[in-house]
Amino acid sequence: MSNDSLSHGDFTLPGEAGYEQLTLRLAKKWGADTIRDSDGTQLSPGIVQSGYAIYSTVCLVRSVQPWACVHRDKLQQNFLMSFPVVAEKARTTITLLAGYYTEQFVVNFGDSPKQWWQVFDRTTGNPVAKAKWSANAKKGTVTIEGTVPGHQYTVNFLAFRVWEEISMYNHLTNNWGDREHLAAVDPMQPETQKVLLAFLDKWLREHPDTKVVRFTSMFYNFSWFWGADHAKLRDIYSDWGDYEMTVSPRALKLFEKKYGYRLTSEDFVNGGLYNSTHNAPSRRYRDYMDFVHDFVIEFGRKCIDLVHRYEKLAYVFYDDHWVGVEPSSPRFKEFGFDGLIKCVFNAFEVRLCAHSTGAKTRELRLHPYLFPTGLKGEPTFKAGGNPTLDAKNFWIDARRGLVRAPIDRIGLGGYLSLVEPFPDFQDYIEGLAKEFRVLKSFHAGDKPWAAPFKVAVLTAWGDLRAWTCSGHFTPGVALYDVLESLAGLALDVVFISFDDLVKNGVPRGVKAIVNCGRAGSAWSGGHYWDEPRVEEILTQFVQKGGGLVGIGEPSARPRAGQTFKLARVLGLDRDTGDRVANGKFKYAAPASPVAPHFITTDVTAPLDLGKDVEGIYVFDGDTQVLAERDNSPRLTAHAFGKGRGVYLSGFKFSFENTRLLHRALFWTASQDAAWGAWQSSNVKTEATYFAKAKKLVVINNAGEPQQTTVTLAGGRAGKPVSLEAHGIAILGV
Amino acid sequence: MSNDSLSHGDFTLPGEAGYEQLTLRLAKKWGADTIRDSDGTQLSPGIVQSGYAIYSTVCLVRSVQPWACVHRDKLQQNFLMSFPVVAEKARTTITLLAGYYTEQFVVNFGDSPKQWWQVFDRTTGNPVAKAKWSANAKKGTVTIEGTVPGHQYTVNFLAFRVWEEISMYNHLTNNWGDREHLAAVDPMQPETQKVLLAFLDKWLREHPDTKVVRFTSMFYNFSWFWGADHAKLRDIYSDWGDYEMTVSPRALKLFEKKYGYRLTSEDFVNGGLYNSTHNAPSRRYRDYMDFVHDFVIEFGRKCIDLVHRYEKLAYVFYDDHWVGVEPSSPRFKEFGFDGLIKCVFNAFEVRLCAHSTGAKTRELRLHPYLFPTGLKGEPTFKAGGNPTLDAKNFWIDARRGLVRAPIDRIGLGGYLSLVEPFPDFQDYIEGLAKEFRVLKSFHAGDKPWAAPFKVAVLTAWGDLRAWTCSGHFTPGVALYDVLESLAGLALDVVFISFDDLVKNGVPRGVKAIVNCGRAGSAWSGGHYWDEPRVEEILTQFVQKGGGLVGIGEPSARPRAGQTFKLARVLGLDRDTGDRVANGKFKYAAPASPVAPHFITTDVTAPLDLGKDVEGIYVFDGDTQVLAERDNSPRLTAHAFGKGRGVYLSGFKFSFENTRLLHRALFWTASQDAAWGAWQSSNVKTEATYFAKAKKLVVINNAGEPQQTTVTLAGGRAGKPVSLEAHGIAILGV
Repeated sequence: MSNDSLSHGDFTLPGEAGYEQLTLRLAKKWGADTIRDSDGTQLSPGIVQSGYAIYSTVCLVRSVQPWACVHRDKLQQNFLMSFPVVAEKARTTITLLAGYYTEQFVVNFGDSPKQWWQVFDRTTGNPVAKAKWSANAKKGTVTIEGTVPGHQYTVNFLAFRVWEEISMYNHLTNNWGDREHLAAVDPMQPETQKVLLAFLDKWLREHPDTKVVRFTSMFYNFSWFWGADHAKLRDIYSDWGDYEMTVSPRALKLFEKKYGYRLTSEDFVNGGLYNSTHNAPSRRYRDYMDFVHDFVIEFGRKCIDLVHRYEKLAYVFYDDHWVGVEPSSPRFKEFGFDGLIKCVFNAFEVRLCAHSTGAKTRELRLHPYLFPTGLKGEPTFKAGGNPTLDAKNFWIDARRGLVRAPIDRIGLGGYLSLVEPFPDFQDYIEGLAKEFRVLKSFHAGDKPWAAPFKVAVLTAWGDLRAWTCSGHFTPGVALYDVLESLAGLALDVVFISFDDLVKNGVPRGVKAIVNCGRAGSAWSGGHYWDEPRVEEILTQFVQKGGGLVGIGEPSARPRAGQTFKLARVLGLDRDTGDRVANGKFKYAAPASPVAPHFITTDVTAPLDLGKDVEGIYVFDGDTQVLAERDNSPRLTAHAFGKGRGVYLSGFKFSFENTRLLHRALFWTASQDAAWGAWQSSNVKTEATYFAKAKKLVVINNAGEPQQTTVTLAGGRAGKPVSLEAHGIAILGV
Repeated sequence: MSNDSLSHGDFTLPGEAGYEQLTLRLAKKWGADTIRDSDGTQLSPGIVQSGYAIYSTVCLVRSVQPWACVHRDKLQQNFLMSFPVVAEKARTTITLLAGYYTEQFVVNFGDSPKQWWQVFDRTTGNPVAKAKWSANAKKGTVTIEGTVPGHQYTVNFLAFRVWEEISMYNHLTNNWGDREHLAAVDPMQPETQKVLLAFLDKWLREHPDTKVVRFTSMFYNFSWFWGADHAKLRDIYSDWGDYEMTVSPRALKLFEKKYGYRLTSEDFVNGGLYNSTHNAPSRRYRDYMDFVHDFVIEFGRKCIDLVHRYEKLAYVFYDDHWVGVEPSSPRFKEFGFDGLIKCVFNAFEVRLCAHSTGAKTRELRLHPYLFPTGLKGEPTFKAGGNPTLDAKNFWIDARRGLVRAPIDRIGLGGYLSLVEPFPDFQDYIEGLAKEFRVLKSFHAGDKPWAAPFKVAVLTAWGDLRAWTCSGHFTPGVALYDVLESLAGLALDVVFISFDDLVKNGVPRGVKAIVNCGRAGSAWSGGHYWDEPRVEEILTQFVQKGGGLVGIGEPSARPRAGQTFKLARVLGLDRDTGDRVANGKFKYAAPASPVAPHFITTDVTAPLDLGKDVEGIYVFDGDTQVLAERDNSPRLTAHAFGKGRGVYLSGFKFSFENTRLLHRALFWTASQDAAWGAWQSSNVKTEATYFAKAKKLVVINNAGEPQQTTVTLAGGRAGKPVSLEAHGIAILGV
């Protein structure tokens, strides 16, 4: 590998007009081959014509504002549920947008309310007959006749969104005053498609120096409904994966034509829960997602074809308007994208990007973003900030994923000028880019060593939501923590859905299955456990020697007498309160902090599993309780048939817990004898072996220097390794 | 009131043969008018003929052992669920009693298993066809053909109980060695009835000196299923109010004839949960309870008539075999009992006893029981014990109820000889008996002052389980704590069921309703909230000015988007985890430990509400959050319509919390202006005003001396009152 190949290439630099010299100096220092614009920055001719490849961002749906202003009926829509109103009399009037941000929403009275809306008596659960209610466009209300005092009523209604959410967020966050409120047009309308394609054609013509069109992203934003009171309740609803903001009468009609049945407003509103990715999705909603995915691919492909006709490349940024794009979908390749760009905070997001197939180039946009302040308002590139330390901390998180999975490019975004006063930051990024290129070179034509068995993560979404739950990390959703742990481990991880399982059984090579989440969640599975084949297949899998790691409320689908469907496999269940009269088996109290076991070998302190589950009880002495709290087991090991089950009452990403999970997976897979190869003794460090390059990469995931020893193949201990804070060692073996 | 009337009467003393002098001395000292035998003690002629009235205990169903030994098919039965077995092959054999205590149970193979039993595939939830399974009486097994590997199977089967539970418990606890195992016969069998009546007739003839036949209790014990491993899982199932132990093929046939439909084994087994009183009961099970209640009254009446024919009185001890007796039932009077005796630990049990109608005399058996050790094995009347302090502490708990409700008699039980070495105990009981007689005299022809409004406790059981949940206090069931608080407050409390509410609306005079418990419990209501009239009636009640105090998971019946049916009334709801994507209103942080409010006036420390509920969120600023933890409100106040709602995330009996609840009830009832009359300033003390006697009774509920001031009628403050530890003051006003 030449020095040059480590110093140059695969790096996207955000350029900035007015800072041409800085742009070109850092492009050279960081080995950039590409310069991009960012939200709020332009590239000047001096940059554009400097010989670097140019990325230009475009967000189609908010690109045609003059047309959008005069075609308000072509704006994007969604269903909203009015806030519940309790009837006091036999006539009840509901102000539809009460509580909602009226700069975002305008009620769609134009498409027949009687056809598309629904009014519910939420006390009985029944819809109110259409003859009993009427909409008043002038007042923005619905009046219901014959209401029963004491009953709760809500209206599901269609609303146009007159302010596109990313524009709204940036505008209000940055106090943009009277700058225009951009609205997003709905490309499901044929007229809109024509306008957008014409715009894109013109834009492509007007950007001759652009090599890569960087779509931000395609057409529909993730769901984000704002409240009237931004201080007290800004986010009434916000979900990264929900398709709520794609719906319209046209979409519903096309859906009915294609699927042969009609969706109702309640399929979207769902009692006010909408269709959060975190909850087990309905079959009807899954159909609707497929329908939208089809459309986004179909029209997206037209846009991408147009880009290609201008001999440019089309990349998509996996953020904001990503709904319908679905980079994990097997159909993603049908778009014809040349690249996928993912902004990353965590290792699991690196794996998510690497996991997508169908785009040749996978690029990461690293943090920190070059903005004065970070996402939580903390100083970054301003007084009090330490951008170099920030960069190191973000890097050690992302790097855990990068050593495990190949990524093609990295880059930054924002205002380049901000880095000028931080020469140490400039130096650090230079080194970081080199580190990235070394790791990339090891991945070339090789795969890092992984355990001799596969691990499957079982959720309602399966591979469609591989290496994420719903967008960036959300505290309190334990599967995120599990994914963050898995993202850096020498394991071959696959993601399967309950439907996959019923259709194809447990995939070949899988020896351990993880099911993690609260009851009813998409992650634990909720109603997908109603299919008895799921329990049957998984139980047989363990009977025959497979392993199950259940976390939180695995396989939870409560019925009288049982909460976890796989209770017998795990050797325990959860009492949700209805077992007051049922006795609980008294298990032997485990040693403190944990009972000795293969799984707990590296545990040195009481377990911190985050906000974990209580009320666990074991059936008999066959379940080894390795840790407990208040008479509720927190970590257990259970032999079942020829296989094994491990239960954890919760999970929180930490170095110790990552090791605990790693060992639990080996143990349940009955691979404890194989434990040790390429394993780093210090839990704050991780080792990865690349066979082709004969290199052992040891990374320090901590902000302090570390010592470790890596067990080599065959079980020999390697030499001690010293690592700087955030450091890396690359050893020939 | 004469001194004599305070020194004598209404006291039942446990006599003991061999201690005639002590018996007669203490009978005089304590003012006893009655002497009783106890389990393990006899009365000698010297006692029986000393002129005192004599109580004699009899437990009919275990009184005919020689007959029971040769009529094993006439023993009592119940359904059991075998422990779940996971199939490995297409044939699965289940050992029915595996895990159960085989000295208690013998499988009933004699009554056709195919007719009465059920085998379940618990993975699909479906019963296994009868042709697919067969029972083997010799091996005690059921073999199922065509089982699906990985599915869970259970058998619901009938078992005779060959060792009556109270006999078993006393036998094993006291190491009675080879003493006979008593079994309980089933009086539902006509032959058995004949045998029992003949026994009773003979017994009555043989007890000419007995004035009161003290039944212990009638025929069926509360449910108590023992496990094989007494150290690890003795109580597989135990519920004070469950009718499980009454069932038999005969009962099922008679039920079908009377009710026109057939009950199945699963109506009793309920997936292994059985029919715990703590869970919202099914309609079918309620019918079955009525059926058994009918039978117990019908045959019980025959027994009591026989007692009366011998010119004796019939009292029933409300414990052990109390199932079907139901002292709170309006039909209780049909038995013709002359007295009801309740053993009490807590104030709510005093109220329970006082609440029963239909027996002229209501007697309390106080604690400590005259045994060397207490119920938890602690020393009482032996080295290390302090029976006087125990008696004081039990008395101050019971006394809170005694000042509020009339009780006719008190008494003790056990081995009288044990008190001989404790003269201070003898003195204390003398004083206690006088204190009781004073309180009784105040109740005569009068009612203590109570707040000018009624409080209703709303549960699935309503008045049938008034002043209890299921037997004695169970930690973690918050309604017990609420009842213990209410039992000593100057409030007129009624107990209503959801059925009462739907049928009759909110009872006249009720201005505050309490709903308290976890989701699905009989206390919070569970499926009874499916009737929309419940929500409608209660919401209208508050709209029109009523008050609601919700505790824990009040009105919980989760559906998409809502957990509490009365969420809008309370101004909050509970997120059980599915609202990850729904924003939460940011309320103003309350002051520490609580925000100032009428309700919190007497709170001085952070709230201790026991194991309370998390995930509470408010809708808007109309809900005042008075206390919180980890961003989850714990105490709130909410105006709704003309009424008010208060929410508490849990409840634990304590003096401060009792005051908090008292104030919350006044506030929700919009009676805060009426607060203060006859209120004691010190929360460790309570005041009760008897108008007819013009007496103010002030009790010290604490073990240390207290000072307090009682607000008199009209709001004037009375003079300071000093109270000894456990003391009482009776003031003329």
